[in-house]
Amino acid sequence: MKLPDPAPVLDKDTFRAGMSRLGAAVNIITTDGPAGRAGFTASAVCSVTDSPPTLLVCVNRSSSVYDRFTENEALCVNTLKPDHEPLSRLFGGKTAMDERFAAAAWSVGTSGAPVLQDATVSFDCKITSKADVGSHAVFFCEVLAIVCHDVADGLIYFDRAYHRV
Amino acid sequence: MKLPDPAPVLDKDTFRAGMSRLGAAVNIITTDGPAGRAGFTASAVCSVTDSPPTLLVCVNRSSSVYDRFTENEALCVNTLKPDHEPLSRLFGGKTAMDERFAAAAWSVGTSGAPVLQDATVSFDCKITSKADVGSHAVFFCEVLAIVCHDVADGLIYFDRAYHRV
Repeated sequence: MKLPDPAPVLDKDTFRAGMSRLGAAVNIITTDGPAGRAGFTASAVCSVTDSPPTLLVCVNRSSSVYDRFTENEALCVNTLKPDHEPLSRLFGGKTAMDERFAAAAWSVGTSGAPVLQDATVSFDCKITSKADVGSHAVFFCEVLAIVCHDVADGLIYFDRAYHRV
Repeated sequence: MKLPDPAPVLDKDTFRAGMSRLGAAVNIITTDGPAGRAGFTASAVCSVTDSPPTLLVCVNRSSSVYDRFTENEALCVNTLKPDHEPLSRLFGGKTAMDERFAAAAWSVGTSGAPVLQDATVSFDCKITSKADVGSHAVFFCEVLAIVCHDVADGLIYFDRAYHRV
């Protein structure tokens, strides 16, 4: 007999309220390839190691874009600047993909993923492995190329609001 | 015959310069238990899922504190506020552990890890699994308890400098 998993000690609302106090950069994560183009806004991105250059991105496995990322095995993290706040909201909502991408200028990265032309920085990546954790997957991504722009300020999401640093 | 791994496409300096443009909250990650007390400054922390409440922390496997975390299986993420900048530098340097901890007031979390008494927010966690990626390990941590303080501002590291949001 398999016993049910114990309930988490902490409720979701308390967890989310706590996490809102951990400031993070705002990014648009894009992909393109055989499974089609997709992009969404995310702050759950972090550097893992420079040996080899690797970052990670957390994605909800039940999201509509999830399969496109796993099938394309390509991903670009486009880190936003303060005047990208409307673009962040657009890619964080329910707008159709074509309409999202029409709102900005893009080039194509080595991986095939769309690279936002005036991002603070873009990390063009190959997804090399993933780990499933509860409702989400963590994509481990080798960074193939970086496009860095000379932008003074960054866009941070903290305390459920956008901030400029 | 095993061929050597191909060299990464991207050099470390380019990777680090790109990552400096991805702003992130500054945290002191602590542990205590059978293997002893330890703490270090890190920005490579992110939310994974609220089902069950989980975050991740990236740690260099060659660091002197690594074994204490894996053996204690306990960890607290203490997110810093702007006036914690000296504490961030202290826990990011070579100072002895006792001296680091003497510089602030701590309580003890459910996990056994030290909880910084005036952090913006503290996430007391049990390390539930890990993934090795190159030089680093990613600790997946179930959040057991959260202590949230009524602090207006957060401390962000961006462009190789501290910023207030």
